Amino acid sequence: MEPFDVVDLIRTKRDRGTLSTAQIDWLVDAYTRGYVADEQMSAMTMAIFLNGMGREEIRDLTLAMVASGDRLDFSGLHRKTTDKHSTGGVGDKITLPLAPLVASFGVAVPQLSGRGLGHTGGTLDKLESIPGWRARLSTDEFYAQLDAVGAVVCAAGARLAPADGKLYALRDITGTVEAIPLIASSIMSKKIAEGTAALVLDVKFGSGAFIQDPARGRELAETMVRLGTDAGVRTVALLTNMNVPLGLAIGNANEVRESVEVLAGGGPADVVELTIALAREMLATAGVTDADVEAALADGRAMDTWRRMIAAQGGDPDAALPQPRESQLVTAPRGGRLVEQHALPFGIAAWRLGAGRARQQDPVHHAAGIDLHAKPGDLVTAGQPLFTLHSDEPARFARALEALEGAWRIGDPEEAPQTGGPLIAGRVGE
Amino acid sequence: MEPFDVVDLIRTKRDRGTLSTAQIDWLVDAYTRGYVADEQMSAMTMAIFLNGMGREEIRDLTLAMVASGDRLDFSGLHRKTTDKHSTGGVGDKITLPLAPLVASFGVAVPQLSGRGLGHTGGTLDKLESIPGWRARLSTDEFYAQLDAVGAVVCAAGARLAPADGKLYALRDITGTVEAIPLIASSIMSKKIAEGTAALVLDVKFGSGAFIQDPARGRELAETMVRLGTDAGVRTVALLTNMNVPLGLAIGNANEVRESVEVLAGGGPADVVELTIALAREMLATAGVTDADVEAALADGRAMDTWRRMIAAQGGDPDAALPQPRESQLVTAPRGGRLVEQHALPFGIAAWRLGAGRARQQDPVHHAAGIDLHAKPGDLVTAGQPLFTLHSDEPARFARALEALEGAWRIGDPEEAPQTGGPLIAGRVGE
Repeated sequence: MEPFDVVDLIRTKRDRGTLSTAQIDWLVDAYTRGYVADEQMSAMTMAIFLNGMGREEIRDLTLAMVASGDRLDFSGLHRKTTDKHSTGGVGDKITLPLAPLVASFGVAVPQLSGRGLGHTGGTLDKLESIPGWRARLSTDEFYAQLDAVGAVVCAAGARLAPADGKLYALRDITGTVEAIPLIASSIMSKKIAEGTAALVLDVKFGSGAFIQDPARGRELAETMVRLGTDAGVRTVALLTNMNVPLGLAIGNANEVRESVEVLAGGGPADVVELTIALAREMLATAGVTDADVEAALADGRAMDTWRRMIAAQGGDPDAALPQPRESQLVTAPRGGRLVEQHALPFGIAAWRLGAGRARQQDPVHHAAGIDLHAKPGDLVTAGQPLFTLHSDEPARFARALEALEGAWRIGDPEEAPQTGGPLIAGRVGE
Repeated sequence: MEPFDVVDLIRTKRDRGTLSTAQIDWLVDAYTRGYVADEQMSAMTMAIFLNGMGREEIRDLTLAMVASGDRLDFSGLHRKTTDKHSTGGVGDKITLPLAPLVASFGVAVPQLSGRGLGHTGGTLDKLESIPGWRARLSTDEFYAQLDAVGAVVCAAGARLAPADGKLYALRDITGTVEAIPLIASSIMSKKIAEGTAALVLDVKFGSGAFIQDPARGRELAETMVRLGTDAGVRTVALLTNMNVPLGLAIGNANEVRESVEVLAGGGPADVVELTIALAREMLATAGVTDADVEAALADGRAMDTWRRMIAAQGGDPDAALPQPRESQLVTAPRGGRLVEQHALPFGIAAWRLGAGRARQQDPVHHAAGIDLHAKPGDLVTAGQPLFTLHSDEPARFARALEALEGAWRIGDPEEAPQTGGPLIAGRVGE
């Protein structure tokens, strides 16, 4: 005998009521074991999308999803743990230089990542362009690498917040992804289950992010920081601008290449700025406050950890990365200043070139993507290279170029670039 | 290649946008053939529930559901057609006396009915308490009976607006039944597909109806009258009060008995009043304006048509109706005036006694139900019978009595009864 009637619970949210802890616990459990049907849960998520959830409901939903699976435990580890999560953006490869950089200070970074879906890339997809590298680790391998190297980026097991996995797949096909209570509980349930002691969130807003509006980005950040804090995870969030692609590479192999440049002390200024800011936050949450982060990039310590991290998962850090079969260069039709370069259409174009997947089961083309040769604010002359498209299938170029219509603009030299403000727009947390 | 992406359409309604005719046509067709999944349609219906639909969207949805199946054609018939639909209430057996009464004036009433679900009964369930009577007719039998007798009450075939059948079953388990665009398009798609030239709607409001608020009842009535008129069906609606059970019988066999009393020139005043008002409206839509409806009840003409209608479908109009195995009488604990008698709890109690079904596939108990011995406004003495519960399973009495707690009240003799106003509260249409 079930203690609740799911139709009553749907009606409660539909009519702007509040669900109790017992009701949410039952709902998540009953959905996980298949008693509550997908069509019932999708009506519920649409009601939540449109009517919202209270603070306690979001906490209850998050903890119910944590309780739906296993919870990792790092208390036996000799290092302090801290982790980072980004809500996803175009060209966001920050995890790649960040995890080894932070680990080079003796802190453990247990980064359980996902794959990309839609126009934002996935960290595992990017790393899989390194020959030999594998995303799946056994639990023993995971703990051993965390102890020995400090940094692990691998696939989350199916036993970590399985309710979230099931619910996310449902939201994806029912138009209910972009709701703050659902985004916040999805992210935080996985991170709490992952067992990290501390967490730094990179909450993105702007045209290339899930959430466009900076104020809603802040609301999401505050919701997640509160959820983490309530669950005993030291949590901080940076609010960062995703109106413009991050760095110069959008894809998979080319993003790995750019990450290695950062680890070698170079790389685009925006990628370096965000990597350093997030590293400082992560180290602070782990109690390391005097770290000279720039030095670790400049003197090769972070690169050493990167090489060990890649090698520990079967990858060859010296191997050549996949090359695209075809490339197509786009040049400036006139001289002037590059004043617009919108993240969303560039993300969609890279996705159409094969860098992303349309369905969960599709493969990605590791060499597909876009290399940018100019960033907003740059002065360009007529005929100067603006960006290069890469694909393994030439038929894809036309639809990618279609997505890029109106995605960038060259203005007069005196015109100010439109970037939607600074890269790091704010911070939430203690 | 599908012309639309269902997630885009869900997002459109979610974000308060408007769906085009082509989008709605595609959605209904794709859902009917299973390309759009139940979980996607339920997210869509919840978005429609919460954000509403425009006038043209409701029309498009209705016509798309009509187009999902067959459409009957009565143009070869020698009689004019008119039909009636009630949005459902507690004790609402009006179709039973009404169809033969109207048919006794030479007008055809092709009444395709449904079964009850939840606390409101189904016309077919009631008629099936008559020994031998069958709800399923072949198309040939249906047309022949309509021509010969004039009145047919039978089950709608699965080919009549199948999209509505599928959508209604989904709404029932996802908490999206009570939305005006969805109720209106569901009812009207079936009635338009049924091919009647005219239609009278009995739109109920109050505690025992789908819609409590009279203003929303009027909105539903106006929406449906517009849909019918736009589709070429002469449509009129009466707004009727469903705060109090209709008549003295709530169940199946006992409602047939009460209907036969009305056809014999007797019966409770409220049932007679509504039967006569609806008959006048139906006859007027068929062009019969001088009918002496009371006379047809008093002189046995309506009863003759009833007997022929029941016999044509295999029923024996003289057979004894099923008797309950157990009955339980409730008497007045004090003298005074019966001032409250709420439809919803009486409907739920009858349902719990076995008169209704919890799931589509459950059988109903034809003898189960409630006989009322007093109506609001009646003066009662202590110990006088108030109502009798009937069931085939004595274990059901306790839960029925639980539903009836607070469902009725005896006040002082000078207190006015609470009935929520007159039985017929308004009219919509030309």
